[in-house]
Amino acid sequence: MSPVGAALWRSLRAHQVYGANTDVGKTIVSTVLCNAIQRQTSQNQAAFLKPVSTGPLDDADDRHIQRHAAGTWTRCLYQFEEPVSPHIAVQQKKTTIPRDDDILASVHKTLSDWAGSGVSFALVETAGGVHSPGPNANSQADLYRPLRLPVVLVADSRLGGISSSISAYESLVVRGYDVHSVLLFRDEYYKNHEYLLNYFQKKSIPLVPLPSPPPKPATWNVDSLARDEEAMAAYYGRVAQKTDIMSLLEQLNAKNAERIDRLESMARRAHATIWYPFTQHHGMEAKDITPIDSAYDDYFQTFAESGLSPHESKLRATFDGSASWWTQGLGHGNPSLALSAAYAAGRYGHVMFPGNIHEPALSLAELLVQSIGNPRLRKVFYTDNGSTGMEVAVKMGLRAACDRYGWDASQEQISILGLKGSYHGDTIGVMDCSEPSTFNQKVEWYRGRGYWFDFPQVKMSQGVWKIEMPAHLHESLGSDLEFSSLDGVFAVENRLQSAAGKRYKEYIRSTIHGLVHKHGMKFGSLIMEPIILGAGGMLFCDPLFQRCLAEVVRGHPELFDPSATRPAQDPAQDPAPEVETAWSGLPIIFDEVFTGLYRLGRKSSASFLNVDADIAVNAKLLTGGLVPLCTTMASDEIFRAFSSPEKSDALLHGHSYTAHAVGCQVAVDSLQTMIRMERSGSWDGYRQDWTPTQTGTPAGSRGDVWSVWSHGLVSDLSHAPSVDGVFAIGTVLSISLKDIQGGGYTSTAARGLQQRLVSTSDGKFNVHSRVLGNVLYLMSSVTSQVEALRSIEGLLREALLSRR
Amino acid sequence: MSPVGAALWRSLRAHQVYGANTDVGKTIVSTVLCNAIQRQTSQNQAAFLKPVSTGPLDDADDRHIQRHAAGTWTRCLYQFEEPVSPHIAVQQKKTTIPRDDDILASVHKTLSDWAGSGVSFALVETAGGVHSPGPNANSQADLYRPLRLPVVLVADSRLGGISSSISAYESLVVRGYDVHSVLLFRDEYYKNHEYLLNYFQKKSIPLVPLPSPPPKPATWNVDSLARDEEAMAAYYGRVAQKTDIMSLLEQLNAKNAERIDRLESMARRAHATIWYPFTQHHGMEAKDITPIDSAYDDYFQTFAESGLSPHESKLRATFDGSASWWTQGLGHGNPSLALSAAYAAGRYGHVMFPGNIHEPALSLAELLVQSIGNPRLRKVFYTDNGSTGMEVAVKMGLRAACDRYGWDASQEQISILGLKGSYHGDTIGVMDCSEPSTFNQKVEWYRGRGYWFDFPQVKMSQGVWKIEMPAHLHESLGSDLEFSSLDGVFAVENRLQSAAGKRYKEYIRSTIHGLVHKHGMKFGSLIMEPIILGAGGMLFCDPLFQRCLAEVVRGHPELFDPSATRPAQDPAQDPAPEVETAWSGLPIIFDEVFTGLYRLGRKSSASFLNVDADIAVNAKLLTGGLVPLCTTMASDEIFRAFSSPEKSDALLHGHSYTAHAVGCQVAVDSLQTMIRMERSGSWDGYRQDWTPTQTGTPAGSRGDVWSVWSHGLVSDLSHAPSVDGVFAIGTVLSISLKDIQGGGYTSTAARGLQQRLVSTSDGKFNVHSRVLGNVLYLMSSVTSQVEALRSIEGLLREALLSRR
Repeated sequence: MSPVGAALWRSLRAHQVYGANTDVGKTIVSTVLCNAIQRQTSQNQAAFLKPVSTGPLDDADDRHIQRHAAGTWTRCLYQFEEPVSPHIAVQQKKTTIPRDDDILASVHKTLSDWAGSGVSFALVETAGGVHSPGPNANSQADLYRPLRLPVVLVADSRLGGISSSISAYESLVVRGYDVHSVLLFRDEYYKNHEYLLNYFQKKSIPLVPLPSPPPKPATWNVDSLARDEEAMAAYYGRVAQKTDIMSLLEQLNAKNAERIDRLESMARRAHATIWYPFTQHHGMEAKDITPIDSAYDDYFQTFAESGLSPHESKLRATFDGSASWWTQGLGHGNPSLALSAAYAAGRYGHVMFPGNIHEPALSLAELLVQSIGNPRLRKVFYTDNGSTGMEVAVKMGLRAACDRYGWDASQEQISILGLKGSYHGDTIGVMDCSEPSTFNQKVEWYRGRGYWFDFPQVKMSQGVWKIEMPAHLHESLGSDLEFSSLDGVFAVENRLQSAAGKRYKEYIRSTIHGLVHKHGMKFGSLIMEPIILGAGGMLFCDPLFQRCLAEVVRGHPELFDPSATRPAQDPAQDPAPEVETAWSGLPIIFDEVFTGLYRLGRKSSASFLNVDADIAVNAKLLTGGLVPLCTTMASDEIFRAFSSPEKSDALLHGHSYTAHAVGCQVAVDSLQTMIRMERSGSWDGYRQDWTPTQTGTPAGSRGDVWSVWSHGLVSDLSHAPSVDGVFAIGTVLSISLKDIQGGGYTSTAARGLQQRLVSTSDGKFNVHSRVLGNVLYLMSSVTSQVEALRSIEGLLREALLSRR
Repeated sequence: MSPVGAALWRSLRAHQVYGANTDVGKTIVSTVLCNAIQRQTSQNQAAFLKPVSTGPLDDADDRHIQRHAAGTWTRCLYQFEEPVSPHIAVQQKKTTIPRDDDILASVHKTLSDWAGSGVSFALVETAGGVHSPGPNANSQADLYRPLRLPVVLVADSRLGGISSSISAYESLVVRGYDVHSVLLFRDEYYKNHEYLLNYFQKKSIPLVPLPSPPPKPATWNVDSLARDEEAMAAYYGRVAQKTDIMSLLEQLNAKNAERIDRLESMARRAHATIWYPFTQHHGMEAKDITPIDSAYDDYFQTFAESGLSPHESKLRATFDGSASWWTQGLGHGNPSLALSAAYAAGRYGHVMFPGNIHEPALSLAELLVQSIGNPRLRKVFYTDNGSTGMEVAVKMGLRAACDRYGWDASQEQISILGLKGSYHGDTIGVMDCSEPSTFNQKVEWYRGRGYWFDFPQVKMSQGVWKIEMPAHLHESLGSDLEFSSLDGVFAVENRLQSAAGKRYKEYIRSTIHGLVHKHGMKFGSLIMEPIILGAGGMLFCDPLFQRCLAEVVRGHPELFDPSATRPAQDPAQDPAPEVETAWSGLPIIFDEVFTGLYRLGRKSSASFLNVDADIAVNAKLLTGGLVPLCTTMASDEIFRAFSSPEKSDALLHGHSYTAHAVGCQVAVDSLQTMIRMERSGSWDGYRQDWTPTQTGTPAGSRGDVWSVWSHGLVSDLSHAPSVDGVFAIGTVLSISLKDIQGGGYTSTAARGLQQRLVSTSDGKFNVHSRVLGNVLYLMSSVTSQVEALRSIEGLLREALLSRR
């Protein structure tokens, strides 16, 4: 199954007709419009599509059109005789229920065929109201959303119709539809058209009132049918004479043309006005910018300007293979999240946070504390993005360390202990937490403040999981390590006593000792991204190494200050003394901005290490891919380091929109959804695929490490001639390509693969992917359809494994 | 007119009955519920309020209740005989139309009286559907929103009713309502109740289907009425026997109790879990935290736990006097902004920005470039908040300067030129742009990098606008300056040639000369908050001083580098050479995060100085008070400083949600609304109030400087014995109090005034205000009601001017 692109042609103006309610005259409006098109000029051809129709065949909407808008092409895809909602009609017909994807594909194909056959105006009429269920019982407004056809809304002229019309309009807006016009019958008693004209005028949406149609016959027989036909024919004649439908059609045409013109000019305009993040504009041309009309589920709807035949839609489904910079979890255009955002906006707007509390901020904080699985983390500090959240984490860690060790940070440099290739954001404070690199060294105020360990990296190569040692460890450990399953790599508790475990610890201990005692460095925090260092190049760190780093730091506080010992718990402050919550050696900060909240298949990626951080930062997936929000969680002990009678000792950090209600509400919705998915076993199929078949796997770890990307793909790609290494975990797939130029920013091999994924013009969708040096990675939502993922895997196999 | 608090009592469970459409059986549902209450126990008393009723008196809903739910107290506030929408009925009645505020106040008073009289259950029934217009033609869902009563939604059991019920539900959600239950009639043919039961179950909203009521008589006469009454009586008896209404009532009661319990526990829970921004938690208690149930317009609905008599609602309207940390522009819970947010969320979610463009990001960038009034600013860089936007601005400015002057910033310190008391955010990079102070000096990595000028400050004292000189200028200028009007202070062009102007320039020039040539400092940018330095203590800088600073920096590039000259325009790059766009001396950065976008009454506060910055940062009001978003705008020349064949020369800065669609869409809506308000003269009344009456005011400046706060108030307060100085501009009012302790963080005088504004328990609303040292400030939206502002002014007068 291929995803459907949104539907947009220059020659064919296609609209979806939605009704504010059932029986508001959708088909009459359609007839009026098609009739007008047919009468306009001989070049115009109208077409009418009723995807799903219920009710007696004789009364079917497409037949009505054929009678009263002569010459209009009509089609009905699915017809059910019972005049009930389609979701009930299908049950009564007892035939195979058409799948939503099939309905969408049929609508798209019909419109495409028409576009190729010279049809200039097409209407796709829905059944009932906007939320009337389709055959699979979900709302039509959701069912047809991927097409995102502009809407002709037929409003309700009856008593109560103002309300139902506006609510129907709002339901469409919440789903990202553009309503291009509103039509309704004129009723001089209720005057809904006057009220609604004024209402929609403010939104620049044209509204056209039509004369009331003749009443329907009380009974249907040959005579009444004939009389009705006659009356309707006279009615349509009257409408054509008296109502300025032509000017409405011109407005609809203009809006269609404007939409395409705008899409055509967007790249040029963006090139003139937008300063892009992380982008070298030198040599960049407008054509390098992709206009995105909209997005739904895992797909962008991207504008394809040129090289199209007339029947091809100007919009194309493109798999968002970076999950929009690693933010998407529940799909684009998610109506539940959109409604959550609107609810919080409607209930609060924003509430200034200090001294106040509101439900979304409290709910989210409590949900995180209760569910994150780290008993140390008791306090939640809100900021707006990973970078600011890490700034707060660093301020917390440094203060706690300086406080305990009595250091005066204004007089001496306090440094960070971390890993090479780490990345924590682009504000200058957290840039200083990473070693000098392409990303930061040209920033005028950058001053790297720390020491960063080189570390052993995991990848699959030639069908085997390998841990490649950096030079200094390679010497002493003799060779790289090999594992038959990823579960073996993650059997950290078992591996602690291995030669590697002992060597890692000794190496870490002696390195820190040298830094502190020979070079006089002072360290204020240990910062790690658990398992995967994302922006640094999708580096997969041996979990044992990170675990050892944490153990050495906590087990040897004397390394950092000669007088330090492991602190005893304070039972007065920590009511559950069996749980260790005091930090030792250095405060440990986990940057889970990328790796947390199910990105790697688990709520917290710290669980892979079995290390409870003292401070942890989450963002990205937190809001399911909607708005910026970040939480920095900390232990009570870290919190108390800022407690003093002096206001100036407090953590004097804040942003205007701290804990904004919209973000918190969306985060609660998003987190709860993902937690429910985990509990209900939504990912069990993936887990099964990744369960090692070998014996000797530690009990309890079975299927604990898994990916949405198939194990077979990873294994197969690891044999590909151009592939240096590959891994998948959770929603992430990473492919390192061999590169004669040596990788890094200059790498071209990965860009070549990226190009091949974009230009699959065989009628399937595109894949939008991102490249980091010689690494191409792909990332899905946690809700991605397995068929879509396997289909993308097919593209990868074709690109990397086929002998061409 | 006082604002109405939201309605919430423990003893009285009050709900609003909304219908999915008209004629869905709202009154029957109300009767069923009231009937059940009345039958429950003798302690229970039901009450029914129909604020606005249309239709024949005999058929009125409250009469129906009286007949069939005997003993229920009923009330109708406004009755219109014509069975049409209230907005049409009022026209036909030709009486005075009740104002929305009056309707709200009456509903609130009725409920309060009932709460005090032992009523345990009350329903407030709306007319028609959720969006059916009230007497003043706006939607009931908006009209009643300030009360935010939990909703009993009566769904539609007819064909099409699934759609209209869900849409009605969504319209309520978008406005921040909580739907506590759904009822509808059972229809075994359409089975809407089955579909909706499943739908609302997923949202944890109980749905109860009721038996279908007997059909209405075809005609109304004495006989049919009697028959109908009998049939209805039998129906209600049947319902009472067969439907489990009691369990629904228990659920409603439980939800009411849960809401109050939660509000009661929120402060304690927040105290346990939340680490507040800018807050010293030492000594802070749960009672210092205010639970905010919701917010609407300019008011929080704050929870008042104790000291209430039974008739008082537990929620109280509290004026958001800090405009929620200076973010609010168009009022809390603004339905238009909420719908804009939902539209973008539904259309896109988030779209990763590099290499892509989407409509909201492009529209906003173009709108800003076209409307901001500074021809230099041509490129828009998006970030998430003022702090990150300023980090970007600093990176831009430093790069441009180092590039031109050939400095190697990795080897030498490049500094910032600024003003004392400036504040640019809490990320460490921009903290370094401010001089050492309480806010930053205890941050371990803070290293102030710059020089900050002391500056002359403006305030009104004893009825006169005074400019107080810092010591070094006081000596040479002899005395403080005085002006009879604020327009005089802002007559910057005229004042340039005054003694003060000449002295300012000379002082600035010689200071910079000394810093560079004696102390060897190198400067990379000039950063200013135009006019008002907000977080630094609402410091009002003499605009002439900031103008002179810009002129000296631009006019004397040789100050910063001996070889520098004013650069000639490059006509190839700048197509309109008559507009100067090249930076000279230093790039000038305006931090308009607080002062921009109408906070001071103008789109850009730079216009007060008539200086076009090279880089400008906007945030806060940008999104009208909904979600974080920031724009850093720059000149093409600054942009080109990052252009090179090397990727690593680019501005490698970005955040995951850069240019998120929700924020951009809301910003477009918000900005366009404010621009429309300015053009349509919405603030002309304020302008008039501030037009100087004196002669000799420079032409063209009349009424150009104005405030929503009345000129009379400012003048009167400036005479108050405890007031040191006062000023108002745009939406900002600032009152400096005399403080024997010397001001600063230890100041208590301002806190005293703050307390007096909170504790006005005379039935009026509270005022939530913020204090900065010895300054208490108040800030409104641009849409605040003038009556509300004048009413707050009354509180200030009482607190500061009455002789008690």
